[in-house]
Amino acid sequence: MSKTIWKGGALLAPVPPALVTCGTMENPNVLTIAWTGIVCTHPAMTYISVRPSRYSYEIIQKSGEFVINLPTSAMAKTVDFCGMKSGKNCNKIDRCHLQLAEGQTVRTPILSDCPVSLECKVTESKALGSHTMFLAEITCVQVEERFLNSKGKLNLQQAGLLAYAHGEYFALGGKRGEFGFSVRKKKR
Amino acid sequence: MSKTIWKGGALLAPVPPALVTCGTMENPNVLTIAWTGIVCTHPAMTYISVRPSRYSYEIIQKSGEFVINLPTSAMAKTVDFCGMKSGKNCNKIDRCHLQLAEGQTVRTPILSDCPVSLECKVTESKALGSHTMFLAEITCVQVEERFLNSKGKLNLQQAGLLAYAHGEYFALGGKRGEFGFSVRKKKR
Repeated sequence: MSKTIWKGGALLAPVPPALVTCGTMENPNVLTIAWTGIVCTHPAMTYISVRPSRYSYEIIQKSGEFVINLPTSAMAKTVDFCGMKSGKNCNKIDRCHLQLAEGQTVRTPILSDCPVSLECKVTESKALGSHTMFLAEITCVQVEERFLNSKGKLNLQQAGLLAYAHGEYFALGGKRGEFGFSVRKKKR
Repeated sequence: MSKTIWKGGALLAPVPPALVTCGTMENPNVLTIAWTGIVCTHPAMTYISVRPSRYSYEIIQKSGEFVINLPTSAMAKTVDFCGMKSGKNCNKIDRCHLQLAEGQTVRTPILSDCPVSLECKVTESKALGSHTMFLAEITCVQVEERFLNSKGKLNLQQAGLLAYAHGEYFALGGKRGEFGFSVRKKKR
């Protein structure tokens, strides 16, 4: 193993290239955000980091709400497009033929085409430099019923989520194990 | 599309199941953390969220340093094991035959077997509930030379990173595009 030394950079991967909705059913917008993650399990909390120059920034700052929608690998082109174009001069929801549905706990709509949508209420915003981090509580999760089994368990592999790694989009591939498999005792 | 409504939960995916090292070369530990992400591009900043009950919590709190090492899909069992066992009563580095190498900007060692290691210095810790979030600046990135092409560009696909989604580990699969492909004009 031989290593090359680079200066500090945002080289964490894979991350979720989320389709984040904001605004209202009457006046919605969508943008792609890969700078997101879970920050707390109880209460369930997440964040998105947004450049203040982005069109959605003011909308989220004012409403205190957004929705993180997880795209499938079939939506890769839409995901890229919603990261490249601004809602200021492009109706991305129309252009990408995205269907909206109502949020349960927020006025922000969810994207019907995404298998999972996390409704979020901002608890704090924190200016860090190029990006401002919106910390938020996840107040509700909407899950596509097709991916639930007869016991109500979500099979997310079936949904075929998209991943982002260092400037490239990937489908999720083969399963390599499940939480706890390394220490589970084998049945006789 | 028909949706099931769940209460708020940590259902963001895929996320990176990182092998986080802490401590020193003489007294190191490693734990698996999927609650991580990029929070700012300039300066390059990340975070990890850790339960205060974990053995590594005090180590990171005191040293103000950690390293995020990105595992390959071949390391899935090690990743799971380092999330299940505590450094309090298990030398996970020995048990998993992990090789350490020196950090460049931190006293914390990196894992040689991981294709990418992000050296991090804590700027703030924030208690959120079950987890405390350590915000940190990424002060150096060590990259495995094998995955650089002749121009020094990193081919992360070649590294075969591991992803975590809702309790399951996955290899990254087929490429679905690259940043900007949806708006790039075709060459004539």
